[in-house]
Amino acid sequence: MKNIAVILSGCGVYDGSEIHEAVLTLLAIEQQGASYSCFAPNIAQHHVINHLNGEVSKDESRNVLVEAARINRGDVDDLIELREQDFDAIIFVGGFGAAKNLSSFALDNDNYSVNEQVLIAAKAFAKVAKPAGYMCIAPALLPLVYPKGVKGTIGKDNATAALISAKGLTHIECAVENVVVDEANKVVTTPAYMLADSISEAAVGINKLVKYVLAFSE
Amino acid sequence: MKNIAVILSGCGVYDGSEIHEAVLTLLAIEQQGASYSCFAPNIAQHHVINHLNGEVSKDESRNVLVEAARINRGDVDDLIELREQDFDAIIFVGGFGAAKNLSSFALDNDNYSVNEQVLIAAKAFAKVAKPAGYMCIAPALLPLVYPKGVKGTIGKDNATAALISAKGLTHIECAVENVVVDEANKVVTTPAYMLADSISEAAVGINKLVKYVLAFSE
Repeated sequence: MKNIAVILSGCGVYDGSEIHEAVLTLLAIEQQGASYSCFAPNIAQHHVINHLNGEVSKDESRNVLVEAARINRGDVDDLIELREQDFDAIIFVGGFGAAKNLSSFALDNDNYSVNEQVLIAAKAFAKVAKPAGYMCIAPALLPLVYPKGVKGTIGKDNATAALISAKGLTHIECAVENVVVDEANKVVTTPAYMLADSISEAAVGINKLVKYVLAFSE
Repeated sequence: MKNIAVILSGCGVYDGSEIHEAVLTLLAIEQQGASYSCFAPNIAQHHVINHLNGEVSKDESRNVLVEAARINRGDVDDLIELREQDFDAIIFVGGFGAAKNLSSFALDNDNYSVNEQVLIAAKAFAKVAKPAGYMCIAPALLPLVYPKGVKGTIGKDNATAALISAKGLTHIECAVENVVVDEANKVVTTPAYMLADSISEAAVGINKLVKYVLAFSE
């Protein structure tokens, strides 16, 4: 059975992992006959957002790994323990956590960087040509992980695409129910909630992303 | 299009809603051609559990409604605003939040009660014979909402079943991929993570629960 490492960035779309995307990814992996383990970096969240009113909770601090544990019933490991040898592929879920905790994309714009542990994990899979899936805003990581020109999509947001393209991504527009496949790098991307208006819409693209990732690991 | 009210109790299995169950419910509702709105009571959580180590976070307090908002991208309403007239059915998701925040089942054992707002909402649907779904531990609410003898399942946990049965539930054992249907009360229950070993297993029973709830609302 193929085993997929799923990388989370907290719990909740505005300061962590987008929860629908995370759960849909885990479901798709199992329904397509593979298994998964979840990982997250053991670092402080950039901030905490009250998801009811959208405001920053100034007096609160939360840990990315501890909050990510909520998404998988406590079963998540510190990203530092991820061994590429144990997995057939890696998938990065979206949500602002990918752009605030895993990287600084939402904060530093054209000068953004990727968390060092995240970079080590992502590059370990790239180096041995194991497949990877990146959804929603997570493809912002791609140009810092793969060679210049790596192909991917964040949907159809021109301003966002321009920033990531400046870093080296070859951005390809993509509908919510579809994926962009970089055959050479074995990288699959889908817009998910960069475009999705509903959970069932997000599910179609995420199911397809998992399908292509698993196919690359044949 | 049928519209379903989904009741959440926080965000995370140990102190709120079980996240897989919540997301699987929303997905099933949409995939079966209906729409949903999420609600949660605007009350303090009973406590906060660190989901990584399972311990109580003594210095933290969180609000059920604010945390529930994480599960649906901020789109959740105060349970006090739920009007039964606007919906065709109501579904209660599981997780310890149902037994710690929506009710006191996990705390008071055979002397447990249901939060007043939750009771008002649940009874409003029961009174007009609109269908209801309760999954995982949420059927603990049933004997306080419906007439004595209401049928339901929490799976196969004898000690838990005995406590709820003492309150008036007619407990029927049920496998994870199945549902128990109370035709007279239009109540559908499924064990979900009372028994599920995986997300895909939980999905089968939850899909079936949504199917029967929607069929009752024909």
